[in-house]
Amino acid sequence: MTEAGLWCERELGYRFENPDFLARALTHRSAGGKHNERLEFLGDAILGFAIAEALHQALPEADEGHLSRLRASLVRGETLAELANDLSLGQQIKLGSGELKSGGFRRESILADALEALIGAVYLDGDLPAARALIQRLYEGRLKNLPPPEQLKDPKTRLQELLQGRGLPTPDYEMELVEGEKHKQTFTVACRVPALDTHTRGRGSSRRRAEQGAARKMLAEIGGD
Amino acid sequence: MTEAGLWCERELGYRFENPDFLARALTHRSAGGKHNERLEFLGDAILGFAIAEALHQALPEADEGHLSRLRASLVRGETLAELANDLSLGQQIKLGSGELKSGGFRRESILADALEALIGAVYLDGDLPAARALIQRLYEGRLKNLPPPEQLKDPKTRLQELLQGRGLPTPDYEMELVEGEKHKQTFTVACRVPALDTHTRGRGSSRRRAEQGAARKMLAEIGGD
Repeated sequence: MTEAGLWCERELGYRFENPDFLARALTHRSAGGKHNERLEFLGDAILGFAIAEALHQALPEADEGHLSRLRASLVRGETLAELANDLSLGQQIKLGSGELKSGGFRRESILADALEALIGAVYLDGDLPAARALIQRLYEGRLKNLPPPEQLKDPKTRLQELLQGRGLPTPDYEMELVEGEKHKQTFTVACRVPALDTHTRGRGSSRRRAEQGAARKMLAEIGGD
Repeated sequence: MTEAGLWCERELGYRFENPDFLARALTHRSAGGKHNERLEFLGDAILGFAIAEALHQALPEADEGHLSRLRASLVRGETLAELANDLSLGQQIKLGSGELKSGGFRRESILADALEALIGAVYLDGDLPAARALIQRLYEGRLKNLPPPEQLKDPKTRLQELLQGRGLPTPDYEMELVEGEKHKQTFTVACRVPALDTHTRGRGSSRRRAEQGAARKMLAEIGGD
């Protein structure tokens, strides 16, 4: 068996009938040849379904908003990259020479995509129960320790959901002011909801924090809190 | 059998073992009591998976971007509402009195959500093959006549994907100017990509058209076209 095959059996508990599926799942586009993007497309959909079903079963009293936020937190790139790191997946991925040097976000998305591709590969090589078993193994700890609703609340997300629920377009965020020296800056961001002809401002030590603050004020203003 | 049960058998080709699932799938939140939002959450995930799998099989040469755009076009609210209209689903939905009077977008999303809830209900009442058979029946015509890649290209989507691929935040769109009389207005929208310190402008007879124009120019400017 190949080294990747041994790794897969040890870490994912799955032995491939057709090792081509495994090789493809571990090949990033930058390596040239047959890469993992189509498998990632399929794996992403299987993961979304399996996690939705697991949450629907595990939380019979939870409303749709809570289930959706939980699902988003479990299938987002950051979480997938953490799971991939626990498996030392990075060492198995075939990359082009340019990508080998890149770090940060690129690396996180490469790991997340490869993990989704592995789910797709197990589904095609095996069947849905095999893919579900892999997802169950990956998410066992997280599904047993689901965060409470408050911990999932993010003002920008809540604002967007609230506006969508009212049939309105998403808000605009605009950076209005950056003050202070480098690495000690304060940002001021405006949040606008044109359809409601109103705006709020948020300040913070990062663009993200300023936006979340502006979204929080908007929620208070339009009655979403 | 209830009237809804007869409708379901005739239009969806499915007979419920447990009619409570059907009743719940057809009950909008506004009607009070047990409503269809949790079923919608589950049905949305099943639909996403089934369509991804169907596209992956039907188009063995298509790249991930094309598959993703096709999937998005097939599962978006507008498409679901069209499918629901073909089934006269609206007449079967139980709504609260307030919602009965609302039109337009609200109605579209109520239809789309109820159709997803029906998929979830068939899955829980039956099994995955039953839900897949329903999805196959609903999408048969559309899966046989998939639009070509060009027809799916939407500048805003392409710009967002390009920026995400480069690890950058999504662009901001801001309405700058509205000219002309009511019903004959021209909109001017700015598209900003703060991380690249650049902006473009688009004009059009609707906000959407102006945004798409601005996104098209931004794609040209940053080398995405």
